[in-house]
Amino acid sequence: MTAGQEGHSTTTYAETGRNAARLAGALRAIGVGEGDRVATFMWNNQQHVEAYFAVPAMGAVIHPLNVRLFPEQIVYTANHAEDQVVIVDHSLLPVFLPLLPGLRSVRHVIVNGPANVSVLDAPGVEVQSYEALLHGQPDSYAWPEVDERSAAAMCYTSGTTGDPKGVVYSHRSIYLHSMAASLPDVIALSREDLALAVVPQFHVLAWSLPYGAFLTGASLAMPDRFLAPEPLAAFIAAVRPTKGVGVPTVWGNLLRYLEAHPEIDISSMEEIVAGGSASPESMVRAYAERYGITLMQGWGMTETSPLGSFARPSAAAGVQKSIAHQTGQGRFCAQVEARLIDEHGDELPWDNTSVGELQVRGPWVTGSYYGEDTGTQDDRFSDGWLRTGDMGRISPDGCLTLTDRMKDVIKSGGEWISSVELENHLADHPAVLEACVIGVPDDKWGERPLACVVLADGPIEASELKNFLNDRIARWQLPERWVFLPSIAMTSTGKYDKKALREQYAQGALRVVMA
Amino acid sequence: MTAGQEGHSTTTYAETGRNAARLAGALRAIGVGEGDRVATFMWNNQQHVEAYFAVPAMGAVIHPLNVRLFPEQIVYTANHAEDQVVIVDHSLLPVFLPLLPGLRSVRHVIVNGPANVSVLDAPGVEVQSYEALLHGQPDSYAWPEVDERSAAAMCYTSGTTGDPKGVVYSHRSIYLHSMAASLPDVIALSREDLALAVVPQFHVLAWSLPYGAFLTGASLAMPDRFLAPEPLAAFIAAVRPTKGVGVPTVWGNLLRYLEAHPEIDISSMEEIVAGGSASPESMVRAYAERYGITLMQGWGMTETSPLGSFARPSAAAGVQKSIAHQTGQGRFCAQVEARLIDEHGDELPWDNTSVGELQVRGPWVTGSYYGEDTGTQDDRFSDGWLRTGDMGRISPDGCLTLTDRMKDVIKSGGEWISSVELENHLADHPAVLEACVIGVPDDKWGERPLACVVLADGPIEASELKNFLNDRIARWQLPERWVFLPSIAMTSTGKYDKKALREQYAQGALRVVMA
Repeated sequence: MTAGQEGHSTTTYAETGRNAARLAGALRAIGVGEGDRVATFMWNNQQHVEAYFAVPAMGAVIHPLNVRLFPEQIVYTANHAEDQVVIVDHSLLPVFLPLLPGLRSVRHVIVNGPANVSVLDAPGVEVQSYEALLHGQPDSYAWPEVDERSAAAMCYTSGTTGDPKGVVYSHRSIYLHSMAASLPDVIALSREDLALAVVPQFHVLAWSLPYGAFLTGASLAMPDRFLAPEPLAAFIAAVRPTKGVGVPTVWGNLLRYLEAHPEIDISSMEEIVAGGSASPESMVRAYAERYGITLMQGWGMTETSPLGSFARPSAAAGVQKSIAHQTGQGRFCAQVEARLIDEHGDELPWDNTSVGELQVRGPWVTGSYYGEDTGTQDDRFSDGWLRTGDMGRISPDGCLTLTDRMKDVIKSGGEWISSVELENHLADHPAVLEACVIGVPDDKWGERPLACVVLADGPIEASELKNFLNDRIARWQLPERWVFLPSIAMTSTGKYDKKALREQYAQGALRVVMA
Repeated sequence: MTAGQEGHSTTTYAETGRNAARLAGALRAIGVGEGDRVATFMWNNQQHVEAYFAVPAMGAVIHPLNVRLFPEQIVYTANHAEDQVVIVDHSLLPVFLPLLPGLRSVRHVIVNGPANVSVLDAPGVEVQSYEALLHGQPDSYAWPEVDERSAAAMCYTSGTTGDPKGVVYSHRSIYLHSMAASLPDVIALSREDLALAVVPQFHVLAWSLPYGAFLTGASLAMPDRFLAPEPLAAFIAAVRPTKGVGVPTVWGNLLRYLEAHPEIDISSMEEIVAGGSASPESMVRAYAERYGITLMQGWGMTETSPLGSFARPSAAAGVQKSIAHQTGQGRFCAQVEARLIDEHGDELPWDNTSVGELQVRGPWVTGSYYGEDTGTQDDRFSDGWLRTGDMGRISPDGCLTLTDRMKDVIKSGGEWISSVELENHLADHPAVLEACVIGVPDDKWGERPLACVVLADGPIEASELKNFLNDRIARWQLPERWVFLPSIAMTSTGKYDKKALREQYAQGALRVVMA
């Protein structure tokens, strides 16, 4: 079912299949052939799911464009992928049309929704409506036998450093990842489930949820563009999903909205799957204690399809132990191999203490970036292993705890301080809405942590927050530098934009309080 | 954990992996190379699991011999597979040793358990003890990269018609089958589970339970040879498994034992997975109502790895509806395609009424028999589909109900009578312990059903059973011929030996009562 301006619409997989056949027929008619890239510029909705099935099954490659990237990045990725067709939600036309002149390979734009396409002026590009294009196409298609190792889909990394990089998913990798993600100790998808896909379909194929749901018979609830807390809460109350999948920011915003609106019934929700960045313990605890919802996080990235590890708590563990487990990154999925490598290239033990770079490999871990030269590849792949750029430790029984992104690591007097750990502790203070910690240059220690804080309500002294941290971490890790901000900028994938903060600090644009 | 004469032993997957490495080292030392067949003649136990991992992972092929086949069939399969090594449980030596002179390709016999191998006389064959063979081998092995499409294992059909036929499983088919079988709507294997493998490892690789358990982190409980109701009940009470997997006969025997011994605590068991033949409704109901255990059946065969369909009831369905679903064969697994074909070769609709031969295909459905000539293959495969030899119907929403084996179908006056349906109804009568129905020649109708019944306690008139059936099935389907037997012979896979019954009837060896 898909959320709409007024209520929501519902359909079946059988009808989705017939529409996918119509779409495939229409795409073939406008010249889409094997291996051609068909882009989408869409929210999570029925037609986007149809494209998810039609495009790969006809032998072409679906490329969901990340609508939240900077305009020049969107243009870069569409040109780099050589997209020939773009299917665009009518609601996104205001964002998309200014980009169109820059899209060098696009010959067809298909508009999904009630837009009057005849008024759209796009020289050299044919613009049609999705509905009109599918009209008259047969509801079956002679789906070809495609090589399982051929490209089915591609997504680009968010490109917080340098240009976005393309990752190609094969039919095989999507299938295996969907099966593994659906297993009982991971997302546990069943035909009993109605899964709410808050994670956008342009974000690592919505973690393959549309494919996993189809494979297991689970139903999908698609919120389209209605992701703000108010319409999202109303959609949940109306359609009653059993599971929700998305980034922590959305769940945090929803939580605050629900707390202010206790009349909203979200009792259908049993589990929330969060990923993309760390979920603060206070949020995990609030969902568990106030709503009976188990919030579990996984670790992954565009390069890993994305599921690398998952933190489902044991049914036998007590609440405290469960929450501690849920705020870690959990166990690696079967078939994902992991190792920790130190700065000298040596492998570190799984003792839950040694911190190194996480490297992984497996059937749904990419082995290269699309269309990049060897130099770029060498930087990120090592002897068949993906260098994740994440720093972490692994316990003897295989539980991963990430401590930082490598580029965010703070090295103070030869010791590492985990920015993630500081952020998680700060987020647990009731006065703190958001917290982001970066490393800044320090004459004496090389680097020291700078804590950037968004407050929930009234003002609070930095010293009080420092005292709060003092009970939880070693004294030498306590930040001296504090910045209070009205909000912290996010990257397109919902992570704190630390690069922007470091630049602002370097330019003296942040007002720093010493404590 | 493995059951033993006195208590049970427990180990870890880590230790299993080290022993598998030792076994692989030992097998290589005695000359086992890529593609060579290593047979087992074992119950379900720790060392058999070690062989399950060591043999395929070193690039060889494991062939678990079915210890319950007729001696000449065991010899046939070992020779047909050209087994070079056989690992034998010491408890099975009395069965195995008489066969050994007939095994043409076997050069090494490895005895698992406390047997004095030096006294075993086997000209041309080297006999060693498992423990001695592994001693001194390193606990790691340079596992090769094997082609996923190469042979990993093989099992033979039970050969109720003609010689047993070999089915080869690849690494790929075992992996995909194990993932699919572990999904939430199928066996739902989790690291929280302790899965009791009652189905023998020589019976379609124990439905891949050892591999599925390893993949998901579930623990395994292996009953070795202690499958009689008393030791099995004691093992369950002692080790507290959450799930049990096996054929209906074992669960029926266990049920009767438990009813006579109410002091035995099997409260740890949440679910039973049954397959191989139909589970009577009365048994499904008894486990549900008296023990709170959901007994679910699947459909499959040696040729399908075996999982083709599975009948997990919906959590939302009421008890009546659930039990009706559980006594059917359920829905096809994702990736298993099915069709019903009538006697003219035409495809039948899924209307829950049309009965035809079930044909299937999919990534873990075999496409041919090992080492058979084209004629034999043509008989069982049709245009890439496996002809299962099972007759059934499929509902519009994809639920399979089997009505008969093709060879057991009773054709009376141009209409089909389902022997399975008659058997299930008879088994629901409290006086009936077991019921088996076969078709016998009839001058007027061509064929008519003959009901063979094993009574639970005292005698009962055939007319009374006929009256009981009269309320449940159409009048023209009621058997006139009745046979009361002290027991009914089973095939090696726990199914009624209808071939033997038909022969006995033809020879006039059965005492028939008309009613």
